[in-house]
Amino acid sequence: MKSRAAVALEVGKPLELVDIDVEGPKAGEVLVRMVATSVCHTDAFTLSGADPEGLFPSVLGHEGAGVVEEVGEGVTGLRPGDHVIPLYTAECGKCKFCLSGKTNLCSSVRATQGKGLMPDGTTRFSLDGQPLHHYMGCSTFSEYTVLPEVSLAVVSQQAPLDKICLLGCGVTTGIGAVLNTAKVEPGATVAIFGMGAIGLAAIQGAVMAKASRIIAIDINPEKFQLAEQFGATDFVNPKDYAASIQEVIVDMTDGGVDYSFECIGNVNVMRSALECCHKGWGESVVIGVAGAGEEISTRPFQLVTGRVWKGSAFGGVKGRSELPGYVEQYMNGEINIDDFVTHDMSFEKINEAFELLHKGESIRTVLHY
Amino acid sequence: MKSRAAVALEVGKPLELVDIDVEGPKAGEVLVRMVATSVCHTDAFTLSGADPEGLFPSVLGHEGAGVVEEVGEGVTGLRPGDHVIPLYTAECGKCKFCLSGKTNLCSSVRATQGKGLMPDGTTRFSLDGQPLHHYMGCSTFSEYTVLPEVSLAVVSQQAPLDKICLLGCGVTTGIGAVLNTAKVEPGATVAIFGMGAIGLAAIQGAVMAKASRIIAIDINPEKFQLAEQFGATDFVNPKDYAASIQEVIVDMTDGGVDYSFECIGNVNVMRSALECCHKGWGESVVIGVAGAGEEISTRPFQLVTGRVWKGSAFGGVKGRSELPGYVEQYMNGEINIDDFVTHDMSFEKINEAFELLHKGESIRTVLHY
Repeated sequence: MKSRAAVALEVGKPLELVDIDVEGPKAGEVLVRMVATSVCHTDAFTLSGADPEGLFPSVLGHEGAGVVEEVGEGVTGLRPGDHVIPLYTAECGKCKFCLSGKTNLCSSVRATQGKGLMPDGTTRFSLDGQPLHHYMGCSTFSEYTVLPEVSLAVVSQQAPLDKICLLGCGVTTGIGAVLNTAKVEPGATVAIFGMGAIGLAAIQGAVMAKASRIIAIDINPEKFQLAEQFGATDFVNPKDYAASIQEVIVDMTDGGVDYSFECIGNVNVMRSALECCHKGWGESVVIGVAGAGEEISTRPFQLVTGRVWKGSAFGGVKGRSELPGYVEQYMNGEINIDDFVTHDMSFEKINEAFELLHKGESIRTVLHY
Repeated sequence: MKSRAAVALEVGKPLELVDIDVEGPKAGEVLVRMVATSVCHTDAFTLSGADPEGLFPSVLGHEGAGVVEEVGEGVTGLRPGDHVIPLYTAECGKCKFCLSGKTNLCSSVRATQGKGLMPDGTTRFSLDGQPLHHYMGCSTFSEYTVLPEVSLAVVSQQAPLDKICLLGCGVTTGIGAVLNTAKVEPGATVAIFGMGAIGLAAIQGAVMAKASRIIAIDINPEKFQLAEQFGATDFVNPKDYAASIQEVIVDMTDGGVDYSFECIGNVNVMRSALECCHKGWGESVVIGVAGAGEEISTRPFQLVTGRVWKGSAFGGVKGRSELPGYVEQYMNGEINIDDFVTHDMSFEKINEAFELLHKGESIRTVLHY
């Protein structure tokens, strides 16, 4: 079948709006009609060429929501008409990782997903006979896309798809990193570096966790209004200080914060985030994705004196079992998604959405098919 | 009063065996007659000049056991005749750290201890009128030494002081890192880097935790006999492989270990220890003390994919409240200390004990006053 799509033909070029060919779902696969998608920094990161695992030509996009159109042989957990959120972190429920009870990093489709292919090692996308790669197992920048059954969360049909699409990455990642990975407890102090969608979602998570103090850090002070709206209590622009940001935070908090979150992907900020934590117990969570080959470093004394360095992918959330609950929380007014949507556009304006993201003018632009 | 002591007069020189002058205990302080002390790598590290916080001239030594001789004004928790183990990590029970329930890093005497002084900012030691620094709040290389009350654990009078002195650092640090810091659970796989006293004690901790597989790693294969005696199940000499040690361990364990411990103080090994952990949940604990200015580094992807990097000081053990229990476990045969004692000597041979440690020929030499 034909499908409208925005294709990444080459590194660093704008996406090409074309009609691509999409094959129907094979065994264990599902054809989904996307209704809404958003653009995340990770899409921009891959398109820029900085992602060492980026593949071209490909259909990018991993933050979306849609409706099941057709299921392949053996698919039993889904049927046409179901509302779904694509998952770049699958959940098979059977692999060593799913069974460990310790992580959301399912291994079932990881190897082929990393190669831009479906689990059988082939692609469902082509343009004028030329195969196109899938992306993060999702490829939400095509109106019709094919995913493994294990990569879809079935959610409430009552929820607006043009809002809950943001639960496919940013919002869930930020909230989950606070609640699942760090397990912030009531009364804790929290520092959040980077006021993009993930940082703002982390603020929201900290509010949900009843943190006593939530310090928002960004070099763009225009972000602080939204940070305050989400519940941050303190606002720090590192450019306002001669001292390092870790010294500033340690001074502000009588020894450092209980938890910190790096939501940028900058390895120097990751170090600052660790070192602004309180001796004896402070934990820092890396969420941002750094460039190819970049490394984090610190003095081991930081760890020996009790700080913990960890990371989070998709907020530690198991998509199929936990994301429906996030959708319910949104419906009950317990999770705010609406304020992340700074722009709404038709899908055809997708390259404008990338520009707004680059300029820091949008938090999330939702694209409507 | 006069006291036999081994004094570190200068960086890199052997200790000088002399009679020093020791002042009696002031308020909140205790005079202890050391009965036995051992030499730990940290003493050697400071003596070598690699420790950026090393102070000279000083009375080193922090792994010992002795008997209370005299208490200063206001000391109520101890009395003459009590058997004690000096603590380089004090426990006041009142500071922010002690009250946190999250760490053993008491802050009560930290500032002055780091300066080689008693809490009132002065020293109790002198040699021919020249003041000598205290060391790690213990200075067990003087037959008579003075410590703050909060820096002494009162232990059973039945326990042999020339064995339980090793609970003052190495044995407790290794066992505690496994049981308190990592909280290794039954069935877990464990990799331990460095078969000195701390590494061997970590093996013992892993056995106590009922780990299913305990991989001992050292470049000196002569250490493996003792490692096996303590309960290690696998033995790896990195020199036997062309691949990196992290690759070797990952291959051996179908994806990596659940927990790893760095017991050397080598920043490159700290990286290997992290990277040999299993994706999704592996935790690495830094125990070794690195040289001045040295840094650890890794790709942040290691953390984002679920590995945790932490550290441990004195095994996370609160000395005054928990060390008496360690002594009881030794008395009940639940903790093996005897096999750590590879050499016994009179105190006067202390420089020989340093040489044995440098050559890797001893695990612990116990020096008898």
